Amino acid sequence: MSWSSQEVRLAQRPQGRPDASTWQLATAEVPEPGPGEFVVRVELVSLDPAMRGWLNDARSYIPPVGIGEVMRAFAAGEVVASQNEDFAVGDAVSGTFGVREHALSDGEGVTKLDLGVAPMATWLGALGMPGMTAYFGLEDVGRAQPGETVLVSAAAGAVGSVVAQLAKAKGCRVIGVAGGPDKVAWLRELGLDEVIDRKEGDLLRQVRRAAPDGVDVYFDNVGGELLDAALASLARGARIAICGAISTYNDETLAEGPRRYMALLVFRARMQGFLVMDYLDRYPEGIAAISRLIQQDRLVATETVLEGGVAGFPDALLGLFDGVNTGKLLLKV
Amino acid sequence: MSWSSQEVRLAQRPQGRPDASTWQLATAEVPEPGPGEFVVRVELVSLDPAMRGWLNDARSYIPPVGIGEVMRAFAAGEVVASQNEDFAVGDAVSGTFGVREHALSDGEGVTKLDLGVAPMATWLGALGMPGMTAYFGLEDVGRAQPGETVLVSAAAGAVGSVVAQLAKAKGCRVIGVAGGPDKVAWLRELGLDEVIDRKEGDLLRQVRRAAPDGVDVYFDNVGGELLDAALASLARGARIAICGAISTYNDETLAEGPRRYMALLVFRARMQGFLVMDYLDRYPEGIAAISRLIQQDRLVATETVLEGGVAGFPDALLGLFDGVNTGKLLLKV
Repeated sequence: MSWSSQEVRLAQRPQGRPDASTWQLATAEVPEPGPGEFVVRVELVSLDPAMRGWLNDARSYIPPVGIGEVMRAFAAGEVVASQNEDFAVGDAVSGTFGVREHALSDGEGVTKLDLGVAPMATWLGALGMPGMTAYFGLEDVGRAQPGETVLVSAAAGAVGSVVAQLAKAKGCRVIGVAGGPDKVAWLRELGLDEVIDRKEGDLLRQVRRAAPDGVDVYFDNVGGELLDAALASLARGARIAICGAISTYNDETLAEGPRRYMALLVFRARMQGFLVMDYLDRYPEGIAAISRLIQQDRLVATETVLEGGVAGFPDALLGLFDGVNTGKLLLKV
Repeated sequence: MSWSSQEVRLAQRPQGRPDASTWQLATAEVPEPGPGEFVVRVELVSLDPAMRGWLNDARSYIPPVGIGEVMRAFAAGEVVASQNEDFAVGDAVSGTFGVREHALSDGEGVTKLDLGVAPMATWLGALGMPGMTAYFGLEDVGRAQPGETVLVSAAAGAVGSVVAQLAKAKGCRVIGVAGGPDKVAWLRELGLDEVIDRKEGDLLRQVRRAAPDGVDVYFDNVGGELLDAALASLARGARIAICGAISTYNDETLAEGPRRYMALLVFRARMQGFLVMDYLDRYPEGIAAISRLIQQDRLVATETVLEGGVAGFPDALLGLFDGVNTGKLLLKV
């Protein structure tokens, strides 16, 4: 037996925003698993801002996706055939399966998912990489303390929505920034202390008004103008956790840097980058903390699931940069 | 008795580079000290990059110098009259006396100098604020460890020359950046492992060649292009100590920020600002460490002393930005 599997390959590297010429839809035959292998029927593909970086031919923390290769993607699905004793048919799993319908795996980097704790979608969101990014970024890099003011960008997104709720649960004063009235309203429902609509402009004025005593922790997913506004509004001893810079990922040239970085000196503050992959061995701690809050109804795990199958991937990725999602953005295969 | 004292006042705030219109030379009468007061005959005035920031009408870590006020300056001299029991006539002292010939003080922020340990000039340099900036920036912010690669900008300057030598004494591999062949030669004599002449351009290529395994600690006094070159050349887990940005201080508009700041994420690195004034209570530790190295001939304290008296201050300050000095730049009163 084998599986005919649609997949999305990188046809050419995009300049700026990816378009139809970036991708090629193809079909591959996935064979019976050999010894130690298993086959996953992918059900959900994760859309992540980091994907844009993987398309660039540049030195980074991970090699770029090669031309002609299947697009790298985190995903979840069900084992449908196995010759690996750790993974049985019927197991729910997540891993870097790529944008395809069926994936052959040897189990490396694959995690079994307990669907009794949370549905598969949540295991790609609040209990997956975005949730762990939120948890370790806030705890280890931002070092948020009860009573401190925490500013979160892209606060309605996969990472930001968890950061904001974790910070609230810790007893911080939380200011979220999001785009548009629907997201703003949703964040208010989640109980954030202040919500800034970035589409209303003048971020510096808005941040200063929301944080008159300064920002102790800024969790930065976006870069750009908001990073400068945060720098100009820091409290003494502040920490900026650099998680991403989605506002610049589709720029054709290297974006401007944060002009106000010397605020780090004025406020004796620090700006620190991190990658969630460095915390892999501490995932159990993060998963325990977030699942406990979910059970206590103190944290809402939210996902936006797009239909369209593997062929819908190019549009889904653009949707991510356009901010179509509330919470984690997923593509249903 | 009283003292007729020349002084330099801020006449108007400069746009960009200060010029003749920025300053006003005036004469004041300094009276006999009252109870608890004393009079200092200023002998050496310290020229510091931070002075440029004090001229701007902007929110910062310290209020700006007011129009018509004596220019703020760190200085050293001798007590010539006293009604303060802690300071006797003949004592050598340092403090924020300003750009003037005689200063009246109540002793606040004034330190007695042991000229048996080092001459007055060194107490404004390697054993003064610049030396303490070097020590705490390297130890506390940069956290340099033996065997690590330390990149130092303005390495022939007051702070940089101490940073470079402290790092060498710790067993680090030290790369210094300075402007012009004389400074480069001087730094090679001090024993630095690599010296980059910034006037030869292409700093990114030069830094990468000097630090093929990456920079663990970058001590930044200059900002601008070199900060970007350092960011692009970091080692994993690197620390950037933000001490200053002299290359931008005379810009008329806010300079561009570091475009490559997302290297902080790729390299899991941090960038942290600091102010030496926060370490006042730990000065004895820094002074002990540096004076020990001086006694062991493992650290050379160097000063460039300009003649010209108080009236020479405007040119001396420009000289600082033009890099006329090797080591600490001082003005003899």
